[in-house]
Amino acid sequence: MTEASTRPASLGAAHTDLSAYDADTTERALIERRARHLGVGLLFYHDPIHLVRADGVWMYDADDRAYLDCYNNVPSVGHSNRRVVDAMVTQAAILNTHTRYLHEEVVAYAEELTATLPDGLDRVVFVNSGTEANELAMRIARTVTGKRGAVVMENGYHGNSNLIADLSLMGVAPDARAPHVAGVEPPDIHAGPFTGDDAAERYAALIDPAIAELDDRGEGLAAFICDGIFDSQGGLEAPAGYFPDVYTRVRAAGGLCIADEVQPGFARTGLMWGFSHEGVVPDIVTFGKPAGNGYPLAGLVTTDELMNAFTSRNIYFNTFGGNPVAAAVGRAVLDEIVDRDLCAHVAETGAYLRAALEGLHASHPEIGNVRGRGLYQGIALVDPTTGDPNPGLARLVPDAMRDAGALMGMTGRHGNVLKVRPPLVFDRANADQLVATLDRALTDLT
Amino acid sequence: MTEASTRPASLGAAHTDLSAYDADTTERALIERRARHLGVGLLFYHDPIHLVRADGVWMYDADDRAYLDCYNNVPSVGHSNRRVVDAMVTQAAILNTHTRYLHEEVVAYAEELTATLPDGLDRVVFVNSGTEANELAMRIARTVTGKRGAVVMENGYHGNSNLIADLSLMGVAPDARAPHVAGVEPPDIHAGPFTGDDAAERYAALIDPAIAELDDRGEGLAAFICDGIFDSQGGLEAPAGYFPDVYTRVRAAGGLCIADEVQPGFARTGLMWGFSHEGVVPDIVTFGKPAGNGYPLAGLVTTDELMNAFTSRNIYFNTFGGNPVAAAVGRAVLDEIVDRDLCAHVAETGAYLRAALEGLHASHPEIGNVRGRGLYQGIALVDPTTGDPNPGLARLVPDAMRDAGALMGMTGRHGNVLKVRPPLVFDRANADQLVATLDRALTDLT
Repeated sequence: MTEASTRPASLGAAHTDLSAYDADTTERALIERRARHLGVGLLFYHDPIHLVRADGVWMYDADDRAYLDCYNNVPSVGHSNRRVVDAMVTQAAILNTHTRYLHEEVVAYAEELTATLPDGLDRVVFVNSGTEANELAMRIARTVTGKRGAVVMENGYHGNSNLIADLSLMGVAPDARAPHVAGVEPPDIHAGPFTGDDAAERYAALIDPAIAELDDRGEGLAAFICDGIFDSQGGLEAPAGYFPDVYTRVRAAGGLCIADEVQPGFARTGLMWGFSHEGVVPDIVTFGKPAGNGYPLAGLVTTDELMNAFTSRNIYFNTFGGNPVAAAVGRAVLDEIVDRDLCAHVAETGAYLRAALEGLHASHPEIGNVRGRGLYQGIALVDPTTGDPNPGLARLVPDAMRDAGALMGMTGRHGNVLKVRPPLVFDRANADQLVATLDRALTDLT
Repeated sequence: MTEASTRPASLGAAHTDLSAYDADTTERALIERRARHLGVGLLFYHDPIHLVRADGVWMYDADDRAYLDCYNNVPSVGHSNRRVVDAMVTQAAILNTHTRYLHEEVVAYAEELTATLPDGLDRVVFVNSGTEANELAMRIARTVTGKRGAVVMENGYHGNSNLIADLSLMGVAPDARAPHVAGVEPPDIHAGPFTGDDAAERYAALIDPAIAELDDRGEGLAAFICDGIFDSQGGLEAPAGYFPDVYTRVRAAGGLCIADEVQPGFARTGLMWGFSHEGVVPDIVTFGKPAGNGYPLAGLVTTDELMNAFTSRNIYFNTFGGNPVAAAVGRAVLDEIVDRDLCAHVAETGAYLRAALEGLHASHPEIGNVRGRGLYQGIALVDPTTGDPNPGLARLVPDAMRDAGALMGMTGRHGNVLKVRPPLVFDRANADQLVATLDRALTDLT
């Protein structure tokens, strides 16, 4: 769910090769200080950007130059959102503590959150990051199934801890795979192995041999975990029927179905939850990034039955998870989504943006396809003659867009997908600016 | 690190047995709502406490009754600390984003933090919790050593993720231990197997067979990880020479030494870092709880060599870790510690408190010993005739103290150690009140 693949490591290794940067003196000094004392130093852009303030969909650098944010999903209800900041400071000035004392705020937040989910998904655990949420989901799955294995997507990403890094095949060398992990091909109907009318069934059928692999290795199946917007694939729309078929196979083998909603959750796709597009109800839903609009807030929701089975055999406590400030912030974000009707806004703006991006294909044949949902759109760049992925072009685009005042990402298994994933308050005028800027950038670069 | 052991599960299982609570109607309704929607429901006290505001060392319930906080270490520079809240809101209103854009605040925080550490511990990674910090420490250790195993303390605690829960033997049933973990006896000179003058050496010598165990299982030694205040043991002071001896043995076997400073770090023991009492320099220092005074903030510090070895083979990104708001909050906490000279204050107040607690022994022979450093003091309750641990008495004390207006914990391998671990701004008058309250409580209970 992070963007570890968004920029090739060579572009981000600011701590190892400063000579690559043509930043001015102030930025260069900051980069050098950063390299001396920060441990993991990936930076976006060849010429790293020094941002000092932000408001809504706009970010501003140290020279007060404005950038249209077409990339950041964490500040989902807008950078520096006043309602969220007010909720944070109001609560922080009164009380911040843990969940072992009674507090109204965390209970109210849990009630409001579960009300957005299907019946049965009633029990929430708040944690601090998507990684922690997925860690706990796997602890629950391993406890209740008595098995250890997970089926995941090839090139997927779920977080940065030891176990979750094992499950994130994007970052794992082929010879370094853990025995408790089996990968399946993501349901890519554009460039994957199955692109015909039977693609949903053929992709879903890959689950069975993956489960058999885990059984053969003595691990067994604890869970299937999937990010339904397929962020690290550059965004995909699973073909209709794929998820119901997969869930049936996973459950038949005794495994749990975990929906990693860290990317698609909280209205990103035009519905509150991404899995609602798919006709399935997961056993565990994990969420993170946009939940606190930047405040470290994440969690999971599951059923009474699974939660009770877990707590009967484990003691789990999370120091910061569900603290009153986090809960107040989370409620403010939910309130913003509801009061501003952001699901409808995202669906409408996303459709408008999608049509405009697809319209670029006529003058830019290097756009192979556009895919995604709502305000998550991936633009796959290809060689117009062969149709092959074109990472060489794709890696130049974010820098060119940045120079033209728009922030955009790049991702995908082949490094050829431009990623558009702005704050949810992004509107039609913003979409027009993005498309016009991209049009010019592609013209200049090709 | 957390207080999973502080209360027996039977006292905390609010979600399974409401009949045990004699809370009034308002609290009972809140407990019932909480039980329906929160997943992991441990609560402190038989009659859970409903806190609504806090200031400095004081917390207040819904009836505006004041409680002296002798327990909470997270709000280390005082509940609702104005300087910290101001730093949070000032930055949150301007910009909150991740570390892939340049930002001054996180660089300045990393500089200030590393300046408090020995030379060589120069590279910081910020994350969101002690669990995430220990996860990353183990990823680094496993990467650089090529081994998987860890030597840990029996009954220790380091966090709540899958791997770190494996390493936290406090929560692991004897038959459920992971093969990559070997436990050693903590250096308890009061009630452990070795209590004589040679205790340091005899405890340290346990490291070698533990390493051999890991080798025998084919796991090998990646790291030794230890919380130097021994929180889940009820606080211990390692005998002089223990840690240098252990570190020598661990390093001779090719392992890294990880100091888990989530409990002792940030002035708790009267020095900025707990390991400074021990005459050792760790390879990795992890920190958490008090770093953000309640804001989810944690991290690790290590050497250039280890960080570079890790990043050359791994991509690590933490979405919220080191965000500008977290960094601003962390700097405010550090500034408070320095400007208010809290290290000296803690050393002085801690010594005063320790003497007063030891003075209670004369009239309360059920106090077996008092141990700990600075503002971490454990009071072991025993049977005065046999000297055996007295968990039956210990479990009654926190409730009695709460009724008398003071919040205190209980922990330890035998559940017989009262835990005093207040915000660092706790002063002599607060210590007097605590000791007088405890005196009365023990008199009433015995």
